[in-house]
Amino acid sequence: MSSLSTPAIPDIVIGRLPLYLRALTRLRQEGKLVTSSHELGRRLDISSAQIRKDLSHFGGFGKQGTGYQIEFLIERLQAVLQVNQEWMVAVIGAGNLGSAISHYRGFQDRGFRIAHLFDISPDKVGQRIGAFVVLPVSEMRETIRKDDIKIAMLAVPAEHAQTVADQLVEAGVKAILNYAPININVPGTIQIQYIDPVTHLQHMTYYL
Amino acid sequence: MSSLSTPAIPDIVIGRLPLYLRALTRLRQEGKLVTSSHELGRRLDISSAQIRKDLSHFGGFGKQGTGYQIEFLIERLQAVLQVNQEWMVAVIGAGNLGSAISHYRGFQDRGFRIAHLFDISPDKVGQRIGAFVVLPVSEMRETIRKDDIKIAMLAVPAEHAQTVADQLVEAGVKAILNYAPININVPGTIQIQYIDPVTHLQHMTYYL
Repeated sequence: MSSLSTPAIPDIVIGRLPLYLRALTRLRQEGKLVTSSHELGRRLDISSAQIRKDLSHFGGFGKQGTGYQIEFLIERLQAVLQVNQEWMVAVIGAGNLGSAISHYRGFQDRGFRIAHLFDISPDKVGQRIGAFVVLPVSEMRETIRKDDIKIAMLAVPAEHAQTVADQLVEAGVKAILNYAPININVPGTIQIQYIDPVTHLQHMTYYL
Repeated sequence: MSSLSTPAIPDIVIGRLPLYLRALTRLRQEGKLVTSSHELGRRLDISSAQIRKDLSHFGGFGKQGTGYQIEFLIERLQAVLQVNQEWMVAVIGAGNLGSAISHYRGFQDRGFRIAHLFDISPDKVGQRIGAFVVLPVSEMRETIRKDDIKIAMLAVPAEHAQTVADQLVEAGVKAILNYAPININVPGTIQIQYIDPVTHLQHMTYYL
């Protein structure tokens, strides 16, 4: 707190903020105006002390005993996470998964809009999938540069994921959400996150 | 080590084991027989010290300087995670996402087999999706009980997720992977994990 530079907030704290934002948005939908770290904690199965500590990194949100103003906290978290703007997202891979992602309506009101859907297969290119006409991967770099797209979702087979990721980084993408079940090497300046349902299933079977 | 009961292994360690297993399986595919904590660490962007420490919870896997026998470590991790058997999985929700999950071929060789696909909509029930004929949710409880299914993947709209989860728990399901963007309350004896792409995207935009 007293150092000259802002102390870095642990990444694990940042990772919980989207969960807080999601729960708060749900509470607002339910017509609530005020909540507490206890109510949030119950909903998220996170201790109220942890929630208070996490939020304290970003300033004072609630007075002792009065709780959090939901609307204010939503706006604040959206600003911290930089989703008080709309990010364009490119989806690579127009198979079953890429198609499902392209149809998903849950991105728009949470800060993201799918701008393009790319595939390498001549069978897919030119096809209409939901609101998109599938573009060829050969146009990916140029299109991403032209539209200044910073985020991509990777839904290609594991064996192509590294190559496509390299091309995305070259095109200026700064954050990749990889659905291919393989670890990818990207420069340290690039954000990468993974979604692999099997790792979640295997995590749970340990306990069964 | 010296306590009478086995000390619990931190959940965060368990969560990394599927990543180790995935990386080791990939190394085996590449024809390798032996690896090291350094090689694994580079691939996974996890420190080699962390990997050695994590694996040490499960006994000695490598001698200093000789590395890990990949095949042996794979078998050991599969046994620890209990995926040296095949788990039947029920998928609830036959929309775009449930359909993509049902088509995904990455479950089978990692310990899971989708057994049934359920939906509530009369438009979907009876339809063929990939290898499945969509069953009505009204038959879910009976079918899950009869087949002794312990794992379910939830791909229903957020507003239905809690109700369906309650029914799954009542039917005997012990582990739920929830794709609906909402937190679900389940008894403490039930495993639950979440996949919500937007939380990953929002985590990354913080750093952009």
